Amino acid sequence: MTDPGSPLLDDFRDLTTADRRPDRPGGRGLVIAEGVVVVRRLLASAYPPRALLGVARRVEELGPELAGVDVPAYVAPAEVMAEVVGFHLNRGVLAVADRAPMPDAVELASRARTLAVLEGVGDHENLGAIFRNAAALGVDGVLLGAGCSDPLYRRGVRVSMGHVLRVPFATLRPWPDGLDALRRAGYQVVALTPDARAAPLAGAGLAGRRVAVLLGSEGPGLTEEAMSAADLRARIPMAGDVDSLNVATAAAIAFHALAPAS
Amino acid sequence: MTDPGSPLLDDFRDLTTADRRPDRPGGRGLVIAEGVVVVRRLLASAYPPRALLGVARRVEELGPELAGVDVPAYVAPAEVMAEVVGFHLNRGVLAVADRAPMPDAVELASRARTLAVLEGVGDHENLGAIFRNAAALGVDGVLLGAGCSDPLYRRGVRVSMGHVLRVPFATLRPWPDGLDALRRAGYQVVALTPDARAAPLAGAGLAGRRVAVLLGSEGPGLTEEAMSAADLRARIPMAGDVDSLNVATAAAIAFHALAPAS
Repeated sequence: MTDPGSPLLDDFRDLTTADRRPDRPGGRGLVIAEGVVVVRRLLASAYPPRALLGVARRVEELGPELAGVDVPAYVAPAEVMAEVVGFHLNRGVLAVADRAPMPDAVELASRARTLAVLEGVGDHENLGAIFRNAAALGVDGVLLGAGCSDPLYRRGVRVSMGHVLRVPFATLRPWPDGLDALRRAGYQVVALTPDARAAPLAGAGLAGRRVAVLLGSEGPGLTEEAMSAADLRARIPMAGDVDSLNVATAAAIAFHALAPAS
Repeated sequence: MTDPGSPLLDDFRDLTTADRRPDRPGGRGLVIAEGVVVVRRLLASAYPPRALLGVARRVEELGPELAGVDVPAYVAPAEVMAEVVGFHLNRGVLAVADRAPMPDAVELASRARTLAVLEGVGDHENLGAIFRNAAALGVDGVLLGAGCSDPLYRRGVRVSMGHVLRVPFATLRPWPDGLDALRRAGYQVVALTPDARAAPLAGAGLAGRRVAVLLGSEGPGLTEEAMSAADLRARIPMAGDVDSLNVATAAAIAFHALAPAS
């Protein structure tokens, strides 16, 4: 492709806003993957790819993954790509996909052992990092309580290194009463809190249990309603007067502490 | 201050490059703190403050901390500040300080119990996040092996939330032979690695020991020389084929696993 105006490239146009375009299916825009590693994860995911756009070298790298997929891969010089997407793209390849239907939260829980349940996590980078950490540390799914952003927003996909496309997620409603359904499915619902009266995470006796870890946003933390709906409260022991950890870092510590020893 | 050209503000001029200026004491530039929280930590640190510059509201917030300190605090409108520093500053207050002499690595180790030892951590955000996590999780000091960036670079100070000004650090040389001095001081030197043959961190039998955790950069990880200089290798158990965690996240998991239960 040498013509940045080609209608074939419309899915890739002006990406700084397009992933928010309300006129797209579901009203929330397309899924956008950037870079070879993330595009590879997209192609292996449940999200139906629509098209790829990349410089020759990067599209060639994806040859094996593209062999079995019926999807157009447009090759263009870097300057043409930059003009289409609206910014310089140093990862050299993009893919767009349609959204896939979200699973039901209770159905997701039924086939999981460890869940992360988020409340008020609005920051796309934190959300992406939580998915990356969930994938690395064996968390089977993420449930979105009130006040969370869209995990499929472009920056979240990038920061998650594409794991948001692999770790299943669902919204949990009503909030926080939907937590009861997890309890009925055999989960211990554990609220992570900096509160010094909570039990240290390592000593909370959760080994071998089905656990749903409840995580709030940096700053305000979990609402009192969410805290009250949990079975127990656990904390990461902190030194001195230090303000709390980044939420994705706290999540990683909790995921590791809850993972079966291996 | 209403004149952005005033020589009194020279320490704050063109900050996107000034913290690298080789003509400063020590050849590495000034320490720059941004925002009320970080400026507060700077004022409580060993780094001698030179001056503050902020909008009225932010400088007033720092009144109690400034009361006992003999340092000029310049008040300026936001536009004047932006013109001086070279970009719009949404945190509203800045402080600059001189560097302080670095402690000796062995002396630092003698008064610590848990240390982080870094090799090849060049990314300022990762470095800052490691200091933030060290402060939160009770790590007493950070030693810089080969290939690390300057922890006092402006972005590192910001991402660390000022904890780089509180957690002591030192360079460890020669590298990696300097690790012997830690061993002689009673430390177990533990290399963190994704290698599946290493022991899981939680079962590495490190509770109650003086531990130095050796962390490599994302991507290449620790060099073979550094790995060989460690007493043992430990890993964070990972799910499936997932690429490794961010180095600051892996560090946080290790720091938590090594912290005395509390």
